[in-house]
Amino acid sequence: MGRIAIGVEYDGAGFHGWQQQPHSLSVQETLQQALGRVADAPVELTAAGRTDTGVHARAQVAHFDTEAVRDARSWLFGTNSLLPPSISLRWVMPVADQFHARFGAVRRSYRYLVLNQPTRSALAAGRALVVYRALDAAAMQAAAADLIGEHDFSAFRAAECQARSPVRRIDALTVRRRGNWLSVEVSANGFLQHMVRNIVGTLLAIGQGEAPPGRAREQLESRQRSTGAATAAAHGLYFWQVEYPPEFGLPDDSAMIGPFEAI
Amino acid sequence: MGRIAIGVEYDGAGFHGWQQQPHSLSVQETLQQALGRVADAPVELTAAGRTDTGVHARAQVAHFDTEAVRDARSWLFGTNSLLPPSISLRWVMPVADQFHARFGAVRRSYRYLVLNQPTRSALAAGRALVVYRALDAAAMQAAAADLIGEHDFSAFRAAECQARSPVRRIDALTVRRRGNWLSVEVSANGFLQHMVRNIVGTLLAIGQGEAPPGRAREQLESRQRSTGAATAAAHGLYFWQVEYPPEFGLPDDSAMIGPFEAI
Repeated sequence: MGRIAIGVEYDGAGFHGWQQQPHSLSVQETLQQALGRVADAPVELTAAGRTDTGVHARAQVAHFDTEAVRDARSWLFGTNSLLPPSISLRWVMPVADQFHARFGAVRRSYRYLVLNQPTRSALAAGRALVVYRALDAAAMQAAAADLIGEHDFSAFRAAECQARSPVRRIDALTVRRRGNWLSVEVSANGFLQHMVRNIVGTLLAIGQGEAPPGRAREQLESRQRSTGAATAAAHGLYFWQVEYPPEFGLPDDSAMIGPFEAI
Repeated sequence: MGRIAIGVEYDGAGFHGWQQQPHSLSVQETLQQALGRVADAPVELTAAGRTDTGVHARAQVAHFDTEAVRDARSWLFGTNSLLPPSISLRWVMPVADQFHARFGAVRRSYRYLVLNQPTRSALAAGRALVVYRALDAAAMQAAAADLIGEHDFSAFRAAECQARSPVRRIDALTVRRRGNWLSVEVSANGFLQHMVRNIVGTLLAIGQGEAPPGRAREQLESRQRSTGAATAAAHGLYFWQVEYPPEFGLPDDSAMIGPFEAI
């Protein structure tokens, strides 16, 4: 029995999120089917982050245990040949039994992409949120700074969130603009359900002048989701990267340049 | 009767190219239907470049004549609301009758996007060519330099190309690498059919070490298409930009940052 880690990229548009569930197509189930055919036995995946319906992943990481003995190339190319175009394995690697994709992750980051222009875009359709009104990135960054650190993020948590504690530590929250593109990147030790999309929703309200930059802190301190702005749409969000202790020797995805890394 | 210019973006995947033809879906026909509904009368478009099946456009320009009187916003938002997600109007502008999208263009440029990595990519699927073997960008750039200038490009022309002269002037031909991404950008006074994809096919053969950098010049001088490498796939190619004399005052698309401008 060996443990194997995989690096996964997907376009979330066609899936009801990462997590397997009855009667709807998930990334997890699609991957398990393909890996199971290569393993000639059922496979069960555990992922670093269970993304919501429609959310994309640039560098998701997951692991599974199997008695099947295949070299990394056979896992990689065999599985990729069985997956739809919207999911691809980037790498496959045998790991120590102590490796755990979910509990072993020390830092996760998400990136939210916004195209800030007065018209929609055929080439960015489904891959970024188009915001028609001009966004003030400096106001958004000022508001973002108030959310960095360890806080009770109840105000940015979905009603159905099942995490035991609402406390998380945001290590970095950066708003960047390049031309008509804007990105919001968040790194944290973990995320509550809808946390990134709720934070982005508040930052977008501030960026459009609907609320002052102080609103983010007010909302955080209220600990009430009911005071918040709308949850930003799923299709602008990417599970960007996940970090593990260096002793596991996983591939360094930070060096990879993805298709939307203009910003 | 007034003449109107439009800036158009499209994902070429679902279309049999720009040009209208019986029994197949073209970008031109789809646009004409939408514009015709806004105009309440048939509209006929003339484009800067007639892209092939599957080729994308970041900044196509076209014009039409109409007796309909609408402000630019009505044309823009009315037409966009009638178009599929894979086509969008970026701008609409009334122009002088002397403006001609095809014959008035002084420079056109195409960009070809390559993802150079050992595995396919879910997020770049259909939007870039994945080349699995390592590409030598310096060898490709050295070969590219031999094609710059005014030449008889018969060796890079499709058999069915209907242009009267095979002579074109390439002003710039640049190969750039950033991480795992590679782009080939070509600016010229005009292009023969499949010219960019045939040039890229030759550069990719050189980049993979299948031919020496001198092969591009040899092929050019042969004036024989039969000596050439395979035509590069359509889905990596973008009609990138077109320039007109400044007196027409068209929007400057060079400032726009598209979804794949990491490189």
